[in-house]
Amino acid sequence: MAGNSYGTLYKITTFGESHGEALGGIIDGCPSGIQLDLEAIEFEMSRRKPGQSAIVTQRKEPDAVQFLSGIFEGKTTGTPIGFIIPNTNQKSDDYSHIKDNYRPSHADYVYDQKYGFRDYRGGGRSSARETASRVVAGAIAKQMLPEIKINAYVSSVGPIHLDTPYQELDFSKIESNPVRCPDEKSAAVMEEYIRDIRKQGDTVGGVVSCVIQNVPVGLGEPVFDKLHAELGKAMLSINAVKGFEYGSGFSGSEMKGSQHNDLYNPDGTTKTNLSGGIQGGISNGMDIYFRVAFKPVATIMQTQDSLDNKGNITPMTGKGRHDPCVVPRAVPIVEAMAAIVLADFYLINKTY
Amino acid sequence: MAGNSYGTLYKITTFGESHGEALGGIIDGCPSGIQLDLEAIEFEMSRRKPGQSAIVTQRKEPDAVQFLSGIFEGKTTGTPIGFIIPNTNQKSDDYSHIKDNYRPSHADYVYDQKYGFRDYRGGGRSSARETASRVVAGAIAKQMLPEIKINAYVSSVGPIHLDTPYQELDFSKIESNPVRCPDEKSAAVMEEYIRDIRKQGDTVGGVVSCVIQNVPVGLGEPVFDKLHAELGKAMLSINAVKGFEYGSGFSGSEMKGSQHNDLYNPDGTTKTNLSGGIQGGISNGMDIYFRVAFKPVATIMQTQDSLDNKGNITPMTGKGRHDPCVVPRAVPIVEAMAAIVLADFYLINKTY
Amino acid sequence: MAGNSYGTLYKITTFGESHGEALGGIIDGCPSGIQLDLEAIEFEMSRRKPGQSAIVTQRKEPDAVQFLSGIFEGKTTGTPIGFIIPNTNQKSDDYSHIKDNYRPSHADYVYDQKYGFRDYRGGGRSSARETASRVVAGAIAKQMLPEIKINAYVSSVGPIHLDTPYQELDFSKIESNPVRCPDEKSAAVMEEYIRDIRKQGDTVGGVVSCVIQNVPVGLGEPVFDKLHAELGKAMLSINAVKGFEYGSGFSGSEMKGSQHNDLYNPDGTTKTNLSGGIQGGISNGMDIYFRVAFKPVATIMQTQDSLDNKGNITPMTGKGRHDPCVVPRAVPIVEAMAAIVLADFYLINKTY
Amino acid sequence: MAGNSYGTLYKITTFGESHGEALGGIIDGCPSGIQLDLEAIEFEMSRRKPGQSAIVTQRKEPDAVQFLSGIFEGKTTGTPIGFIIPNTNQKSDDYSHIKDNYRPSHADYVYDQKYGFRDYRGGGRSSARETASRVVAGAIAKQMLPEIKINAYVSSVGPIHLDTPYQELDFSKIESNPVRCPDEKSAAVMEEYIRDIRKQGDTVGGVVSCVIQNVPVGLGEPVFDKLHAELGKAMLSINAVKGFEYGSGFSGSEMKGSQHNDLYNPDGTTKTNLSGGIQGGISNGMDIYFRVAFKPVATIMQTQDSLDNKGNITPMTGKGRHDPCVVPRAVPIVEAMAAIVLADFYLINKTY
Repeated sequence: MAGNSYGTLYKITTFGESHGEALGGIIDGCPSGIQLDLEAIEFEMSRRKPGQSAIVTQRKEPDAVQFLSGIFEGKTTGTPIGFIIPNTNQKSDDYSHIKDNYRPSHADYVYDQKYGFRDYRGGGRSSARETASRVVAGAIAKQMLPEIKINAYVSSVGPIHLDTPYQELDFSKIESNPVRCPDEKSAAVMEEYIRDIRKQGDTVGGVVSCVIQNVPVGLGEPVFDKLHAELGKAMLSINAVKGFEYGSGFSGSEMKGSQHNDLYNPDGTTKTNLSGGIQGGISNGMDIYFRVAFKPVATIMQTQDSLDNKGNITPMTGKGRHDPCVVPRAVPIVEAMAAIVLADFYLINKTY
Repeated sequence: MAGNSYGTLYKITTFGESHGEALGGIIDGCPSGIQLDLEAIEFEMSRRKPGQSAIVTQRKEPDAVQFLSGIFEGKTTGTPIGFIIPNTNQKSDDYSHIKDNYRPSHADYVYDQKYGFRDYRGGGRSSARETASRVVAGAIAKQMLPEIKINAYVSSVGPIHLDTPYQELDFSKIESNPVRCPDEKSAAVMEEYIRDIRKQGDTVGGVVSCVIQNVPVGLGEPVFDKLHAELGKAMLSINAVKGFEYGSGFSGSEMKGSQHNDLYNPDGTTKTNLSGGIQGGISNGMDIYFRVAFKPVATIMQTQDSLDNKGNITPMTGKGRHDPCVVPRAVPIVEAMAAIVLADFYLINKTY
Repeated sequence: MAGNSYGTLYKITTFGESHGEALGGIIDGCPSGIQLDLEAIEFEMSRRKPGQSAIVTQRKEPDAVQFLSGIFEGKTTGTPIGFIIPNTNQKSDDYSHIKDNYRPSHADYVYDQKYGFRDYRGGGRSSARETASRVVAGAIAKQMLPEIKINAYVSSVGPIHLDTPYQELDFSKIESNPVRCPDEKSAAVMEEYIRDIRKQGDTVGGVVSCVIQNVPVGLGEPVFDKLHAELGKAMLSINAVKGFEYGSGFSGSEMKGSQHNDLYNPDGTTKTNLSGGIQGGISNGMDIYFRVAFKPVATIMQTQDSLDNKGNITPMTGKGRHDPCVVPRAVPIVEAMAAIVLADFYLINKTY
Repeated sequence: MAGNSYGTLYKITTFGESHGEALGGIIDGCPSGIQLDLEAIEFEMSRRKPGQSAIVTQRKEPDAVQFLSGIFEGKTTGTPIGFIIPNTNQKSDDYSHIKDNYRPSHADYVYDQKYGFRDYRGGGRSSARETASRVVAGAIAKQMLPEIKINAYVSSVGPIHLDTPYQELDFSKIESNPVRCPDEKSAAVMEEYIRDIRKQGDTVGGVVSCVIQNVPVGLGEPVFDKLHAELGKAMLSINAVKGFEYGSGFSGSEMKGSQHNDLYNPDGTTKTNLSGGIQGGISNGMDIYFRVAFKPVATIMQTQDSLDNKGNITPMTGKGRHDPCVVPRAVPIVEAMAAIVLADFYLINKTY
């Protein structure tokens, strides 16, 4: 398997299966001398972890990070930061029902086809549990770029949309409710909807919006490694993501150039920002904003047909605890990946 | 500048400015022994080139490719394929009006900020002319994977949408009209709309849809380099792209798991394909389909305010010929990038 | 810090300081389905570990590897193999004498200059203790390529040389003595010499020779990534290495073409093998052989002048246990890096 | 074929066969704003080109570089620099005698085995003609780092050695003789020797020494990408190279630590420099020096047995013009690769 690393200069490599000994990773390229705020890292982990509220999965994963290298006397040394997140409950569940069965819309089938063999426990490497390592790397990237503000929030849950422009939202409200929607009225409706979905043993998708502020002009590389292309890849690499748009996005495809062009102010800022803070793949100093679409989690508590490895269709019911709506816990993952992308381009930009 | 390469094993590196001596690139990693169909490459180039119809830019660029290496007796040798596309008209235009001016929603400003200096002629490196090199690399990638069928087409022009499911379209009609929309009625309406936009001296965006068929199971790498994440990055790296969605896309975020899950047939195919042919980042053998949103081209023939490099706002009118709608010419570029991504994963998958 | 990864498809990334919590690494790209022989891995670790004989450092490092991922039911799954090697004695030594002092011919000074800060305990990241992680990755690479035989041995200790051609040596004798020299008479003289050096509180360099047999034709990539160029880089990346030569090596520079050319047998093998099994950067099926020069370890038990971080020259005496001769323990490291290089090229070669 | 790129941030990718249309390359990552001295580039090309003196090959290759992008108004723009070197004489020679024959100690056999097919004209991609592109990239790297002085010279031709320490040599004499040996007496003996070898229709190897001065402290990355490991790889990637040693090199393996350690001066310089300017893989500000061993060129004008592709041994005599001694022309290539390595690490070091 290739593909377990992200980044050129701020580079994260992760390992770990859902039910192995531990997850973890190596962050290579973090500059030396950064005084790490370990509590801030723990806070990000707590936003991602299961069981944080009544509307997310109730699996128990403490997600405690152990740093093994790269930090001395509280500061980064410039050497690789190795860390692990032990899987404390790896033997508690029974996965015999999926050992020989491919769950619909899971990666079971393609893993068996590609590798001839798989660690079937809890989805193994294909489990979204892997994103815990990304949150660690993102939390450190955030501390590397203290001036840049990254705020993600839930803007849709299933059919319920928050259409308020981000400029009118109070990001300090994001953590005030379990949905992570900064508009409290919408949050309440979304929460109610998720509770209902959960009772049905079903799941629902949603959209995470993200706003990045105080980005210096010049981040991003022209041509293949445009800033928004890397942001898009980073977001699409998160489990369950089906779409990415930035700035005017899909709605921009309906517009005319005379409407879409962002006219300049004398200081180089623009009067409008349909460009989404990026022109020609390079940040222009305006706010970067984008939206990430998540499909519903495939594991439901209803009975559905699955395929076994002998070609038989057999009914299967999800066991254990399920995650009725993925987006509240996806918020810190979106922020983490954004921070990793920015940290990487920040370092690349220092070489000019 | 970094970022001028794409791919790990099938790797394309490009160079060239809009008005320099030549564009070109190097394809590294193409297997040996492929009998190249040079006419097929020329055909792809002709689909991208300016002046191909009345509804695209009338600039004259012959876009003739010269292969310099890596081919012997008509076959690839396994060594890098170097090629150039001479810029025949590089001195014909007058770009003095943008020498010291930043056009709205162009990369002029960010290039000057990032590099302190820029080749201002025709947008220099930020010009979409760079995509000609991608079409060459994509055309060869297509020949490397003859069994895989890649069909892109225009599904929206501004407010005009073709909502017919791709299964009901006849892809052989794509080239039958200058819009590259396989539904002839929609194509006629779109063409009329573009002609009108052109008369206004304005531009309009659109959406390119792409369908990839006969993909073997197993392409794509889990975690960061998921097949759809790379497709997304590849598409977002094309000039003017604002969004990418695959399978159920943004609409999938509104669905429930019980609706969205693709149930299996005994042979491993699925009854529905909301997954878009990819599960866990790996192709599952079903059709891959995705949509790419393009904003309107920024250069319009109307007068708009621009910023000069001394901080003055000055009105500017686009000169020369403009491209009223980018999507007909974007179709071969979308296909080319898809082919490059698939070729790369195809080679990676051979290492298992 | 960049540079903590090696390889393109079989890729090892390592982390860890001499006196941190743990060392470790991630192996990405190991194919699935390999039944791992954990005892063979332990055996390689035991060949590298301190305290294995009277002629190497007597530091106590158990070097027990814990695998955290990528292995299921005893077999590799194709997912990244994460592992750690806990540092059990990280608090036992006193390193206050080097906290503000730069030891001669150590990396202390350059680390402080480059990073502004360093983990001074035991050399931190610059310690050869990092090579333990390489031995793990190499041991798995060996199991991936069971048909290829890699044998390294000590061919020089200081002024004592074993000049016997490798064809006349019995590699099964390498482990029969603590020096790892397959010629028992030379081994005895070398061992005596090292014991004497040790009594003097001094250290001595040496040469490790390596022979790789049963390599298929075709490994290695032309131009920059020639097989011997990667082997050279891999060897030169091992602590204390000062030189690398393969095939005829430096002595080949004194020869004429009429003497140096290896004439063919009808089956494609060659009558002589001054090429060292590699032509044009690609393995030709003949034995690959090379030599690696190690300088003496810098830490000696004699008093030498050091520099403190205020610019004062102060005498310093090495504390604790020292390693009088590095080469016996370097043998498994040379083999490990050779195995990693071969595994990487083996996978790349599968893409043709 | 992979392996046609070198470098992470200052990155060169090359293409081209000996007898194709053209050689060339792309330099990606060169910072913007460097006023290029094109004559200095031409001078480096003239040092590498055939026919420059009576003791090198008399083939006619003008080796004129055409820059196609990345330069505007005489300065680098920060965009990729594409260039070609047309092969003007690609049809003049007759290579039918090697079409089906594998010359001893050439890459003919391994290319056919690896790729199933080869461009046999003049060695195709395996020809040292490829190094012309490296000289272009190196000449620009030198201009990027004007303060760093790189001087390579011939220190051995066959059995004739110049053993004078580099400190006692006058580098301004390197270009005063066709051998590129700064000691004029040795140069005369070497030249005479080469003339004699040439009359015999034979070839001879040699050694190029290289000294790099005024390197800032801190270049090089610890662990796998040590400065000397990359220098070693870069040198070993040059055709005909069999060995690399830096600082004390192989002779350092015979020394004791008490002799080998470089004691500090109060300013951080060292009294001796057996380390060769690099400690722990990082430059320490002292002179970097290393030696590169070249085997004799395989093409000789004597009759030798070759193998044809049906397994028959047949006598073959080299045709055309041969290169009796490779090292005078290798001097600028060694310098070029050293400059490329330094430029890359210089940019990486800016990210700290």
